[in-house]
Amino acid sequence: MPQGQPTVVPDDGLTTRQRRNRPLVMVHTGVGKGKSTAAFGMALRAWNQGWPIGVFQFVKSAKWKVGEENALKALGATGEGGTVAWHKMGEGWSWIQRDPKDGEQSNEDKAREGWEQVKRDLAAETYRFYVLDEFAYPLHWGWVDTAEVIEVLRNRPGTQHVVVTGRNAPQELLDFADLVTDMSKVKHPMDAGQKGQRGIEW
Amino acid sequence: MPQGQPTVVPDDGLTTRQRRNRPLVMVHTGVGKGKSTAAFGMALRAWNQGWPIGVFQFVKSAKWKVGEENALKALGATGEGGTVAWHKMGEGWSWIQRDPKDGEQSNEDKAREGWEQVKRDLAAETYRFYVLDEFAYPLHWGWVDTAEVIEVLRNRPGTQHVVVTGRNAPQELLDFADLVTDMSKVKHPMDAGQKGQRGIEW
Repeated sequence: MPQGQPTVVPDDGLTTRQRRNRPLVMVHTGVGKGKSTAAFGMALRAWNQGWPIGVFQFVKSAKWKVGEENALKALGATGEGGTVAWHKMGEGWSWIQRDPKDGEQSNEDKAREGWEQVKRDLAAETYRFYVLDEFAYPLHWGWVDTAEVIEVLRNRPGTQHVVVTGRNAPQELLDFADLVTDMSKVKHPMDAGQKGQRGIEW
Repeated sequence: MPQGQPTVVPDDGLTTRQRRNRPLVMVHTGVGKGKSTAAFGMALRAWNQGWPIGVFQFVKSAKWKVGEENALKALGATGEGGTVAWHKMGEGWSWIQRDPKDGEQSNEDKAREGWEQVKRDLAAETYRFYVLDEFAYPLHWGWVDTAEVIEVLRNRPGTQHVVVTGRNAPQELLDFADLVTDMSKVKHPMDAGQKGQRGIEW
């Protein structure tokens, strides 16, 4: 919870207001639960501000996070807050041509295509709040170049906030990000022999 | 993300299905961001299951988390998923009589009244998913008795999931909970002199 006083006041030539409204890059990493969930929770605030929201799911299975997807889409459809666009990796990427060759595309190619679309949207300022869900994985695996991602984020125009989630986020990205939270697992029901359940895990 | 296999299979006489659908007590603690946000993100999944959701905010200022409140209430109002009831501590507790003496009530009394209502709702199975937001504080401060809370949670009827958030959750509660995530701060914009901003912090 924001308690008011920053610990230092930087000599960056910005007014408090300019500094306050600076667009942020945020990373949720670590092995615990809540990384994506907290990102989607943040999207609730963005929605309430009327900001256009773009979610890019860099995950293999489209069945994951269907709860958040349905809920955020329903919110976007109310017309009371921001819009919500939801993109899923691979066949779910809405800008990919639907032709038979799609079936041959590797996950690596799909992740790269997703990132190319994020780049286009950042350049066009399509959204004001981006969730790059599980994007830390393709970065960690080297499918997408972390240095390029940082460069694109550093030079993005306007006021576009970006949240990246996933385990093993590269150190360079953590160094660059404005906010980093590490979710550590203290205890999980699976340790006690319980499988994931509807409404809780998805 | 659930990867399928639990690490042990307990000898508890339950079937996999019974164990899978066991109601959970979850705690989000630690000094990092995302504790409440992840709890509200989980509420999106609960909403998608059509579960009645009860949020109890144990915070002093009603201005906090207005983004999540507006968004979850709007979701509840769509009629497409679960309902959402939102209760704020003190004057926000919807069951407290509105009389002049309210102004004299201490935060300690208010927190206790909130817990009494949670107890009534658990006994009546009013909701299926509870967010006891920042409830760790009154427990930590001893305003509400942790042993009693654990006893009530242990004996709650039906299938009611409960998420407790807040720093300094008592160790007894962590020991009792099914799932505990510690959100640690790695880096926060306030460290770089940036104040909280609209759409991000609230």
